[in-house]
Amino acid sequence: MSGIFFEDLKVGQTASLAKTITEADILLFSAVSMDTNSAHLDEEASKKTPFGGRIAHGMLSAGLISAVLGTRLPGPGTIYMGQTLRFKAPVRIGDTVTATAEVKELNAEKKRAVLITTCTVAGKVVIDGEATVLVPSRG
Amino acid sequence: MSGIFFEDLKVGQTASLAKTITEADILLFSAVSMDTNSAHLDEEASKKTPFGGRIAHGMLSAGLISAVLGTRLPGPGTIYMGQTLRFKAPVRIGDTVTATAEVKELNAEKKRAVLITTCTVAGKVVIDGEATVLVPSRG
Amino acid sequence: MSGIFFEDLKVGQTASLAKTITEADILLFSAVSMDTNSAHLDEEASKKTPFGGRIAHGMLSAGLISAVLGTRLPGPGTIYMGQTLRFKAPVRIGDTVTATAEVKELNAEKKRAVLITTCTVAGKVVIDGEATVLVPSRG
Amino acid sequence: MSGIFFEDLKVGQTASLAKTITEADILLFSAVSMDTNSAHLDEEASKKTPFGGRIAHGMLSAGLISAVLGTRLPGPGTIYMGQTLRFKAPVRIGDTVTATAEVKELNAEKKRAVLITTCTVAGKVVIDGEATVLVPSRG
Repeated sequence: MSGIFFEDLKVGQTASLAKTITEADILLFSAVSMDTNSAHLDEEASKKTPFGGRIAHGMLSAGLISAVLGTRLPGPGTIYMGQTLRFKAPVRIGDTVTATAEVKELNAEKKRAVLITTCTVAGKVVIDGEATVLVPSRG
Repeated sequence: MSGIFFEDLKVGQTASLAKTITEADILLFSAVSMDTNSAHLDEEASKKTPFGGRIAHGMLSAGLISAVLGTRLPGPGTIYMGQTLRFKAPVRIGDTVTATAEVKELNAEKKRAVLITTCTVAGKVVIDGEATVLVPSRG
Repeated sequence: MSGIFFEDLKVGQTASLAKTITEADILLFSAVSMDTNSAHLDEEASKKTPFGGRIAHGMLSAGLISAVLGTRLPGPGTIYMGQTLRFKAPVRIGDTVTATAEVKELNAEKKRAVLITTCTVAGKVVIDGEATVLVPSRG
Repeated sequence: MSGIFFEDLKVGQTASLAKTITEADILLFSAVSMDTNSAHLDEEASKKTPFGGRIAHGMLSAGLISAVLGTRLPGPGTIYMGQTLRFKAPVRIGDTVTATAEVKELNAEKKRAVLITTCTVAGKVVIDGEATVLVPSRG
């Protein structure tokens, strides 16, 4: 059940996963987060916004970053310490979001890694930022 | 249906909401985010980790911050531009998480607000960070 | 796929179904209804209310009445015209709610039936009221 | 976290919220309510009914009334005592339902309020009725 050990991480290493965002995702994320903002749930009101229709919660796409870190790179055993997020473009129902993490820095003393984290839709960046994680050590 | 206009925001203004985290929240957040890390879903494996049992996804609690911003302060119409998150302590099933946002800075030219965003459990900070939002203008 | 025809209904006829209410039910009903009232989702705040803890949405239990009418008595094909509801006692997580419908009046000209509708927990009435339905005719 | 106190309610005061009904809503409401009637879940069978396709559960739209009462008017702290519902027209997938509550009567002795409760789709009434609630007192 363990992921990649700190000693096996290399700067530049990447992993990603992708998911098509559905109305069901938005409904369930609303329940879990209590974020029932009309931008996500009310198509009529959303048509009048700059986005022209319902959009997914930014934190929903950010959840995919958490998934890459927690299941692939570095994977199970990782402790999530911090995340920065810049929401650059909306995600709509039917969009396929690809979340990618790339190892940027490794701190051997503290067993910490910084990863560049990006979400894209059709090649366009919708979220960027960085994650800081504590990685299990082989030692 | 609109929230608080930029002109009506004041530095120091706060809003919050709270929710008790259940197994159902963790299941649904796993489904939506694809984060099926055993730390959240496998009680037996989790007993052997430093946390001693299953914990909620950090991004699940972060979702409550999104809810405060999107439904209360500033509320509907707000455009989420960025968020920093430091995960400081785990959230367990049954914990009641209170998410609070407090206006820290107002940029009248760009209609942007920076808010201090905090999640607590029984008064202890589990997440802190800052949100940057674009706020609808009355003008 | 059809239910009981109007001509086969008799005054006094009954049907019921039962379900144990879980945290997942409350979470999903919150999503569907947008009713994120802390009485349902925040255990700490709910402890300070007259109910002493989280309660299920009244309309969630009322949904079971809809289920009896739509799946058993009269069943598929029924058109729901009206419902009165009196919420008499709270339903808590773990309670098993039994919803019962009993035919009270039959209007042969309009093919309408009135049913007494009751939800109970451990024999105690938590909701009572009446449903009015339009029932498919054999003729 | 409290809503509007009884003393601050006025006859004629209104609040509303809106939501676009999705297939996910119908699925989850079916799960929660056990109302698996083919009218909601079976498109082929539903095409042969007077409605010509799947419709949302009437009680699903009624849930939005509960949300207005429990989160906006009067809001948290309100105790739901009763509701009458007349289902006047079907709600289909993709319809945006607006639920509105308007204070009709105030009983100062019992701290009870009666509200006119209406659900509309594109301005057309799909549900009407009245709610009776017990409202927290400032005193």
